[in-house]
Amino acid sequence: MENNKALNVPPLLARIDSPADLRSLPVEKLPEVCADLRKFIISRLSANPGHFASSMGAVEIIVALHYVFNTPEDRIVWDVGHQAYAHKILTGRREAFDAQRTLGGISGFPTPSESPYDTFVTGHAGNSISAALGMAIADRNTPGHENRKTVAVIGDASIGNGLAFEGLNNVSNNPNNLLIILNDNDMSIDDNVGALHRYLSELYTSEGYNRWRHRLANWMMRKGYLTDKKKGRLLRLNNSVKSFISGDQNIFEGLNIRYFGPFDGHDVEKIVRVLRDIKDMEGPRILHLRTTKGKGYEQAELDPTTWHAPGPFDPATGERKKKSSEGAPLPWQEVFGRTLVELAREDDRVMGITAAMPTGTSMVHMLREFPKRTFDVGISEGHAVTFAGGLAAAGKRPFVAIYSSFLQRAYDNIINDVAIQGLPVTFCIDRAGIVGEDGVTHHGLLDLAYLRPIPGLKIAAPADEETLRDIMFTSLSLDGPLAIRYPRGAAVNPDWQTPMKTITPGKGRILSSRPGARTALLSIGPATDAAKAVEELERLGIPVDHYDMIWLKPLDNALLRDIASRYERVFTLEDGTVAGGLGSAVADALDTFGYKGGVRHLGVPDKWVSHGKVGELKAICGYDTAGIVKALSKGEAE
Amino acid sequence: MENNKALNVPPLLARIDSPADLRSLPVEKLPEVCADLRKFIISRLSANPGHFASSMGAVEIIVALHYVFNTPEDRIVWDVGHQAYAHKILTGRREAFDAQRTLGGISGFPTPSESPYDTFVTGHAGNSISAALGMAIADRNTPGHENRKTVAVIGDASIGNGLAFEGLNNVSNNPNNLLIILNDNDMSIDDNVGALHRYLSELYTSEGYNRWRHRLANWMMRKGYLTDKKKGRLLRLNNSVKSFISGDQNIFEGLNIRYFGPFDGHDVEKIVRVLRDIKDMEGPRILHLRTTKGKGYEQAELDPTTWHAPGPFDPATGERKKKSSEGAPLPWQEVFGRTLVELAREDDRVMGITAAMPTGTSMVHMLREFPKRTFDVGISEGHAVTFAGGLAAAGKRPFVAIYSSFLQRAYDNIINDVAIQGLPVTFCIDRAGIVGEDGVTHHGLLDLAYLRPIPGLKIAAPADEETLRDIMFTSLSLDGPLAIRYPRGAAVNPDWQTPMKTITPGKGRILSSRPGARTALLSIGPATDAAKAVEELERLGIPVDHYDMIWLKPLDNALLRDIASRYERVFTLEDGTVAGGLGSAVADALDTFGYKGGVRHLGVPDKWVSHGKVGELKAICGYDTAGIVKALSKGEAE
Repeated sequence: MENNKALNVPPLLARIDSPADLRSLPVEKLPEVCADLRKFIISRLSANPGHFASSMGAVEIIVALHYVFNTPEDRIVWDVGHQAYAHKILTGRREAFDAQRTLGGISGFPTPSESPYDTFVTGHAGNSISAALGMAIADRNTPGHENRKTVAVIGDASIGNGLAFEGLNNVSNNPNNLLIILNDNDMSIDDNVGALHRYLSELYTSEGYNRWRHRLANWMMRKGYLTDKKKGRLLRLNNSVKSFISGDQNIFEGLNIRYFGPFDGHDVEKIVRVLRDIKDMEGPRILHLRTTKGKGYEQAELDPTTWHAPGPFDPATGERKKKSSEGAPLPWQEVFGRTLVELAREDDRVMGITAAMPTGTSMVHMLREFPKRTFDVGISEGHAVTFAGGLAAAGKRPFVAIYSSFLQRAYDNIINDVAIQGLPVTFCIDRAGIVGEDGVTHHGLLDLAYLRPIPGLKIAAPADEETLRDIMFTSLSLDGPLAIRYPRGAAVNPDWQTPMKTITPGKGRILSSRPGARTALLSIGPATDAAKAVEELERLGIPVDHYDMIWLKPLDNALLRDIASRYERVFTLEDGTVAGGLGSAVADALDTFGYKGGVRHLGVPDKWVSHGKVGELKAICGYDTAGIVKALSKGEAE
Repeated sequence: MENNKALNVPPLLARIDSPADLRSLPVEKLPEVCADLRKFIISRLSANPGHFASSMGAVEIIVALHYVFNTPEDRIVWDVGHQAYAHKILTGRREAFDAQRTLGGISGFPTPSESPYDTFVTGHAGNSISAALGMAIADRNTPGHENRKTVAVIGDASIGNGLAFEGLNNVSNNPNNLLIILNDNDMSIDDNVGALHRYLSELYTSEGYNRWRHRLANWMMRKGYLTDKKKGRLLRLNNSVKSFISGDQNIFEGLNIRYFGPFDGHDVEKIVRVLRDIKDMEGPRILHLRTTKGKGYEQAELDPTTWHAPGPFDPATGERKKKSSEGAPLPWQEVFGRTLVELAREDDRVMGITAAMPTGTSMVHMLREFPKRTFDVGISEGHAVTFAGGLAAAGKRPFVAIYSSFLQRAYDNIINDVAIQGLPVTFCIDRAGIVGEDGVTHHGLLDLAYLRPIPGLKIAAPADEETLRDIMFTSLSLDGPLAIRYPRGAAVNPDWQTPMKTITPGKGRILSSRPGARTALLSIGPATDAAKAVEELERLGIPVDHYDMIWLKPLDNALLRDIASRYERVFTLEDGTVAGGLGSAVADALDTFGYKGGVRHLGVPDKWVSHGKVGELKAICGYDTAGIVKALSKGEAE
């Protein structure tokens, strides 16, 4: 099996075990390396899914950088690291790549603990410039490291993020030689948005200028004004000429960063030449390369959104292996997205906001039916929340759908721009809990704990579609903010389109009761595993009453007072960290009601959780069905 | 008394009870209104301190906006609202201004619950564009509100914040008529930094262009190409001419926002004319006004950093009434700032980072002695943390000093760019706990709770200078991140410069013990109130043992196990929210050690805390000395 796969490695790539091997090749061989990398990525991702389109688009940039720079001594920071598969393959992880994103296998994102070539964890967009600037300035201040180079590679969607701008705004404050590569594929996961993006497109369309510039350069070479040694001058000249012709000052040069480009990001020999020209220049520089997402695989080039992370597919035909969803429950996000449209039809105050994830959050339904009331703000989670605060302050009812781990970027906005002001914004927190293969940067494990300390914020997690819909409906009659969290993946009932009703915030419910139960299990969010565990425990002779708290805040104190008086043992269960979430809140409340039985918290222990299947990771954390059974039977067995 | 103050109101200002009164004046009277406002601000702030220099600088902008726009139907959002004192005075709060920032008085920041003229809470910089855009788009989508205007007023320091950039990048995505006023005073609280700031300065220095433009405009008026009705054209023309002459494309126009300026922000009649010209234009616009921080008060103009918030002063002489600090303890920030320099002298890996607060955090000492190893990144908290992550990844030992409530803006950066990677960054969290007069947006009450769920992050709060210094020293030998929190104001010991030693993370200590104590008080951070309370309780016949936990994470489980076995009652005390902080952590731990006595949490209840003196607010929250005595004697008295 391992041998088959090894045979499957294209021949030139099979000889490259490290960037040193790559650097020993003549430059003319690099297009073949790129072709081999594409074949390899197609063959591996068709079987073991991952981020496809952006990886295919970045192949030449990756090859050229490792060819020109002396990695790992020179450092490359890959923004939104899922573009960097070719980098992993070239840096000694070709075989390991078969197991990428699986339990125990390599991560889908750069991970310094995995390889010295991975310089920084880059799961969330926009951090590469700031991090690389830190490295560049550290090297400047470290004897012997002064000549190390640092490169940040950032996409055109990421560069619109506020953190990236703060980085750009600080790049020229201190001496450094940071090189920023703008990998401009005109796409986020969905279509790119924002004024900066339009600006970049306009830069690209000045084709006439590019032709003129080449003629000028050739003429200067012939006349001897320009030699290979002085090539740097050519590039600087290009910029001046460009400003002169177009009458534009480049926005990056306005920020005191020298700008080169745009160039074709799939012409690997050209990229190598340009990189050699600008590699040793002093001061911060930005090199603008135009690429095509999905490059080299026709289906992905035509539909890069679908092929962002397409799942398994047939490499020959491009047919995607869809899971049969006949009669299966919809994903949680779809229940949210379709319900939002229903609410918007009835209440014209309803507005929808997504931060670059219209498809991922299913906000796309709202975007299609109410384009004027739906806003994709790009990778700008902070703006998304503050903008929602402004909408709410002017009488609207915004629903902000953001993935749990990305909402961490809007923490202060939730506090200051919504909660302090008691504004009726509804946060729809998708991908809450363990998300699986995307791993440590993408799990949504902290939201219950970080939202709980915010006064006046209501926090709920539905166990089923009906409750999700009821909470969303109820939010329209609340006079303050509300956060709803729900996980990645399928919800629980195929019949999701229940009539909506107002429910009481802070009111939990009993899901199942058994005669003689001295143990209570209090869960929040989807409770399928818990329900199975309770059945299994009954078979083991341990009757357990199962409660669905629904609300972390307000807590159902009436219910908890009752629970305090009725049970000897209380267990809490949450798909999130036990450090500060439901368990802590329930324990604090039970304590005030005089409960002496002790509260055991099931959920994610206070450790980082790696990548793997959701079920595998929950098992490791001890709160899959078997883990729950084990935890609840333990005390009884003693 | 009240009469005296009323007599003190300058005559024209005394007749303005609302913007409608202002709008009834002829435009020629506005300079007098501005002069009156300045007199009033000087007289009031000299007695009841507040944010002086920025308020003085914004007077003409505020008068002109309320004069031209139909507030409160038209909305103004004031970024970093402490510039907006003149706005408060003009909008019915002239008398109330005497009690601003005091308990029960009006807030120092715009507060919608206080006045319909306050449209949004703006305590943290950079949120005005996003919030105002929300309002502008909400009005576009509300029948009958289509003609409402929205204005965001933002400073040149705030506009460098990532959130402001995300706002700018999204302003032109949807139809709206948002007007952005850039109040450019060339200053943050300290000197402004960043490339954008240099860019703005360059815009301003194109004086030749301004003279030329005026001549052109006059000529066009004479020729009849321009009439009063067509004045809008003039302004648009100005921009085109400007681009043509300078060969620059304006950075804002690159973002698809029409740019006007720069104009003198202290010529109120001119501002009125310009505002009238551009008020009804379609589409987003930015008006660049140059102002002087502290304008109209010479001492403040000369030293705007000192006069940002100068405390009480003699209005005639400008002499600041300094508190006598003879023999008193240094402020916590000073102990931090001076200790950092000591560490930097011994260890060249030590680097210092501040986000626009070199004076406020005392990073200024490091900046002076080690300018190459100290970085003021401007109001860019997210970048500050990620940049620190980059420094640490390249072998440095960065200390990031940020106020507690502002660190909320870097939450995801702490998680992804430092903690997930286990990078040795030391967070020095200043202004933790109740800060007093700045109120709800500035209290640092959530940090213990929001940091606790982050795996691998050590969290400490010293009770005295010696411990602060030891923790800082210890951080240099740790291989992961550490957060240290300390409050605003004076530390505890005049003799602060103790020799530094390595201490064990996660090790607490007993501060005082009394024979027969059945009650334990576990505090974290400064414990002066608690120590007094314990003495008082002894006098009341209630012996209490007092522990200093020092570390929230790791918790001292050995100590807690011992406490679980020895006491009948446990109280926790923290200068922060009880929803998820020390109390929750201790209770969870004691529970696992079989403690049945119940844990009572003293600290800030799960509510927003207003402004007032620190002691007043702690008393309200029930954890000043009297509150602690009351809480601990309650159980005993029963």
